[in-house]
Amino acid sequence: MSLKLTILGCHSAMPSASTHTTSQLLEIKNHSFLIDCGEGTQVQLRKYKVKFSKIKHIFISHLHGDHVFGLIGLISTFRLLNRETELHVYGPVGIKEFICVQLKLSKSFADYPIKFHELSSKESELIYEDKKVKVYTIPLKHRIYTNGFLFQEKIGERKLNMDEINKHPEIDICDYQNLKNGKDFVRSNHNILSNELLTHAPLKPLSYAYCSDTAFKPEITEIIKNSDLLYHESTFLDDREDLAKKTKHSTAKQAAQIAKLANVGKLILGHYSGRYENLNDFKKEASTIFSNTYLAKEGETFIIP
Amino acid sequence: MSLKLTILGCHSAMPSASTHTTSQLLEIKNHSFLIDCGEGTQVQLRKYKVKFSKIKHIFISHLHGDHVFGLIGLISTFRLLNRETELHVYGPVGIKEFICVQLKLSKSFADYPIKFHELSSKESELIYEDKKVKVYTIPLKHRIYTNGFLFQEKIGERKLNMDEINKHPEIDICDYQNLKNGKDFVRSNHNILSNELLTHAPLKPLSYAYCSDTAFKPEITEIIKNSDLLYHESTFLDDREDLAKKTKHSTAKQAAQIAKLANVGKLILGHYSGRYENLNDFKKEASTIFSNTYLAKEGETFIIP
Repeated sequence: MSLKLTILGCHSAMPSASTHTTSQLLEIKNHSFLIDCGEGTQVQLRKYKVKFSKIKHIFISHLHGDHVFGLIGLISTFRLLNRETELHVYGPVGIKEFICVQLKLSKSFADYPIKFHELSSKESELIYEDKKVKVYTIPLKHRIYTNGFLFQEKIGERKLNMDEINKHPEIDICDYQNLKNGKDFVRSNHNILSNELLTHAPLKPLSYAYCSDTAFKPEITEIIKNSDLLYHESTFLDDREDLAKKTKHSTAKQAAQIAKLANVGKLILGHYSGRYENLNDFKKEASTIFSNTYLAKEGETFIIP
Repeated sequence: MSLKLTILGCHSAMPSASTHTTSQLLEIKNHSFLIDCGEGTQVQLRKYKVKFSKIKHIFISHLHGDHVFGLIGLISTFRLLNRETELHVYGPVGIKEFICVQLKLSKSFADYPIKFHELSSKESELIYEDKKVKVYTIPLKHRIYTNGFLFQEKIGERKLNMDEINKHPEIDICDYQNLKNGKDFVRSNHNILSNELLTHAPLKPLSYAYCSDTAFKPEITEIIKNSDLLYHESTFLDDREDLAKKTKHSTAKQAAQIAKLANVGKLILGHYSGRYENLNDFKKEASTIFSNTYLAKEGETFIIP
């Protein structure tokens, strides 16, 4: 089991020649989940050699431009590339109108199906599930309706203990799936070989919590508790905690407090305000509270474990 | 008098890591007119050191994404930069809804005034005029309602012929403006010194015609006749004239035919389809018909005269 996060953009407000606004690609359980989509995301995807056809689910935290202005371009490019696969877009109520008005006015309706999943709940909810992964919303506190997203692997199958299995020729290859599913093995003499003897526990399922944009909101730690990886916005440093409060953003210190309270494995900071020249100050500030802190940088990948 | 055109993007359909979709900056008579605004235009403006505050008029040819998806980001960035100056946006009916729906849904209404000038006429019309410059639409032939734009300097004031003026001490500095305006000078003895004696003709006013996107439409040559500079789209080469016709685009050969028919000074080709690797083939094809042909390339400037 592994989880790979690629930072496509990690700066706030507006792009520049050397910085891009928010977008991330999460590879987990053979999915390529795109999280937020600032202007220029399609070019960042090309730059980092992401196959466009692998993207089937896009999660939009909120409708501020630095998280969504690249979505219409990406959707249009999918069409130009003759996409046929269905696309799922998760985002606040309004995301459908946001995109469809532009498609309508440019007479460029997509030839492939787009399914919009419009979110409005103030409580965390399960918004995607398949056999291997679940995605929950993380209600955040921002100037407009905003969700973070929690991506969780499900507990996998148990692993066969072949050393032990090979001692019992009665166990056939046809029995393996039952063993993986946790069943005991009943011998022909009606004795039982316990599943624990014949299998190893499955690997620990991994999880990634994405929290941007948000003011300091300790209530979210209940939802993201023990996540292996947390991205938490840190638009400001503690010197401008007043501005963070006013604009409903967080400081690096507050992001670290959330990481500590939630007992996560690793913290990634991002969504830096353009006022700061030295990003290492963010890491420095957060590390005093939560040592396993990293800086989001464009093109960087975080792989767990 | 001079005119400077900077190519910010000149490729069709979708941006890539090394190519941008359509946008141009025209500097004429102390104006900085932005023409079309594909995704990433704001970053291109930064790259080529264009002062955002100088842009007061944006002309959008049509609502296909590769000409307009960057507009919402630029408008938002103007707001983040605390712009106060009024912005004028000229484009097809629908341009206002295109932008305002996004501003509404992201709760990011601009703090500065934006005036939308929605166009729907099928005839060429004057859409901007001040003391020094006029802008006309050039109705084009594309899959959706599309205009090119003709930017024309007005004829300037006559130039003082100081060698001649200095021979007549009667002529005071207060009379200069009348002379520049074309008036004769009446001496105290009631004799007349003709304006032609005392001034030189004004410099020839310059003009720039922007034509993208469009099928071959020779009717436009009446509007753009004798322009100093013409940008005409050439999405395809002559080998795909069938595809040009079907998609209502032009070939390099057709662009050159327009340039020749309109007797323009210089032709710039652009809006290249991604299928062609060697852009020189566009120049080669057009040059057989119109020799003074140039290729649009990102970051390149064309200065007239």
